[in-house]
Amino acid sequence: MSGETLQVYFLGTAGALPTPNKNPSCFLIRRGSDTILFDCGEGSQQQMMRARTGFTVDAVFITHWHADHYLGLPGLVQTMSFMGRKEPLMLYGPKWIDEFTENLEGISKTKLGFKIIPNEIRENSVIPFDGYTVRAFSSKHAMPCLGYILAEDERPGRFDREQAISLGIRPGPLFGKLQRGDSIKIERDGKEIAIHPSDVMGPPRPGRKIVYTGDTRPDCDDWIKYGEGADLLIHDSTYDDSEKERAIEVFHSTAGEAGEIAFKINAQRLALVHISSRYTNMTNHIRDAGKQYRSEIIAPEDLDMIEIPFRG
Amino acid sequence: MSGETLQVYFLGTAGALPTPNKNPSCFLIRRGSDTILFDCGEGSQQQMMRARTGFTVDAVFITHWHADHYLGLPGLVQTMSFMGRKEPLMLYGPKWIDEFTENLEGISKTKLGFKIIPNEIRENSVIPFDGYTVRAFSSKHAMPCLGYILAEDERPGRFDREQAISLGIRPGPLFGKLQRGDSIKIERDGKEIAIHPSDVMGPPRPGRKIVYTGDTRPDCDDWIKYGEGADLLIHDSTYDDSEKERAIEVFHSTAGEAGEIAFKINAQRLALVHISSRYTNMTNHIRDAGKQYRSEIIAPEDLDMIEIPFRG
Repeated sequence: MSGETLQVYFLGTAGALPTPNKNPSCFLIRRGSDTILFDCGEGSQQQMMRARTGFTVDAVFITHWHADHYLGLPGLVQTMSFMGRKEPLMLYGPKWIDEFTENLEGISKTKLGFKIIPNEIRENSVIPFDGYTVRAFSSKHAMPCLGYILAEDERPGRFDREQAISLGIRPGPLFGKLQRGDSIKIERDGKEIAIHPSDVMGPPRPGRKIVYTGDTRPDCDDWIKYGEGADLLIHDSTYDDSEKERAIEVFHSTAGEAGEIAFKINAQRLALVHISSRYTNMTNHIRDAGKQYRSEIIAPEDLDMIEIPFRG
Repeated sequence: MSGETLQVYFLGTAGALPTPNKNPSCFLIRRGSDTILFDCGEGSQQQMMRARTGFTVDAVFITHWHADHYLGLPGLVQTMSFMGRKEPLMLYGPKWIDEFTENLEGISKTKLGFKIIPNEIRENSVIPFDGYTVRAFSSKHAMPCLGYILAEDERPGRFDREQAISLGIRPGPLFGKLQRGDSIKIERDGKEIAIHPSDVMGPPRPGRKIVYTGDTRPDCDDWIKYGEGADLLIHDSTYDDSEKERAIEVFHSTAGEAGEIAFKINAQRLALVHISSRYTNMTNHIRDAGKQYRSEIIAPEDLDMIEIPFRG
């Protein structure tokens, strides 16, 4: 499945405190028919209603156990249950996720109509989905924090139609077999000849890739190792560069530091998120992020959605 | 203190499910410098920001343990702590409040900077504040549910200035003493005479009164006993009258039923709240509430605030 849509909904771009216009952290990624949440701050269910994303969430990934990253879950699961959900909900996150899931169930007097399945993951855990994976890496925060990379599987190379015809294959079902990766046999000059996909297909093309750092200092080798060439880097940008000392002190990043990472990993686009409530506009953040990074910088408003196009 | 402001902020008027425009239940009452929350659904802290009420909450009263009435507390207490609160927070509610408070603390990995003090209350519990009380009564819901009446102390009667002068009292500090309820002595015709407040003050005047039903069928003798003449009745009106069977089934009220209660207790104003997400406007609710009740009916939007004036 190489033609799936890939959309990112910015449902919560605030820092530790919400504001009248910004909810705490929540990013919803829709790929084809899958819906994955990354973090789920208070009010996420209402943001999902506002963005009309629906509630058919397949999995939730939590970065860490600061309350602005998960307090939307108790209400979200209540609403899912109210709406008749029966399918288990997969919940992924760092150590403490088992206790958290108990608390999540314990804080309600009513029994949910479905199961929540906690999965403790750690650095380099890779969770497979249909056509893509989610890989966890360690961010650098005041408490253990995971970042996540959603990476599509490689797409097949381009099919060389002219080459196929010149090899004596007639346009039709055999083209499809080769494109799907199967070898075929044809008769040429009275002899049976095998044609392999590699005879008519270019080299595999990379899938799309989204990196979400969680709360962090700008400092992780894995971002470069696994995030190289990301189509979108969603990076902690709690402060503008004038507050760098504060950023260091509380284990967050400035917009300029986010720009440096985007530059290092050669990201196509950079989204600045987890914005401290002290800022009323993003002028300085965008200026600072652009000091080193020269590709597209976005400072999403809550409820913004962007599509990630294919490249090449 | 008989001249205090009394304001009601409708921070959440949705039913069990929020909508893009309505948050789950939360009503903030400000009396003088006191701030009291009744219920605290998810997102209440953000509604408080939007309504600019501040976070100096003195007490929180929870009606019952359905999640749409309390899931805003975990985030609210985090934000209070983040902002440096040190004063304990008084939390009142029915049985299970001790376990809930444990869960409230357990769902966070970070320690709050202040104490939460749970207080289990029941029918006819009366909590005294400075110049008013909050009385609990039993509503009729699918689980035990308390309603609350905030009632101001009686105000002193009117001071009869002409009468005081005719008794030989000179305008000045002695007027103030009598108004504050102290007896005084004056000399008249060479004799010392005692003057009592009742000699110059009319009968005490009732304080203002607000009744909040919580989730309920329209059926409670205590509403009439203690809520008679309420300045404001905030009544469950989950459905319009066309859904009366559904209302009975799930232990809620229709707008027409709320109007009947407002009529019975002779309320000055009726506010229709806990509105099911199925309704996109309140036309039918207001029509149905007005079938029997002829005073002011309001269907507040979230963030609306009303002031309760003195009468007489």
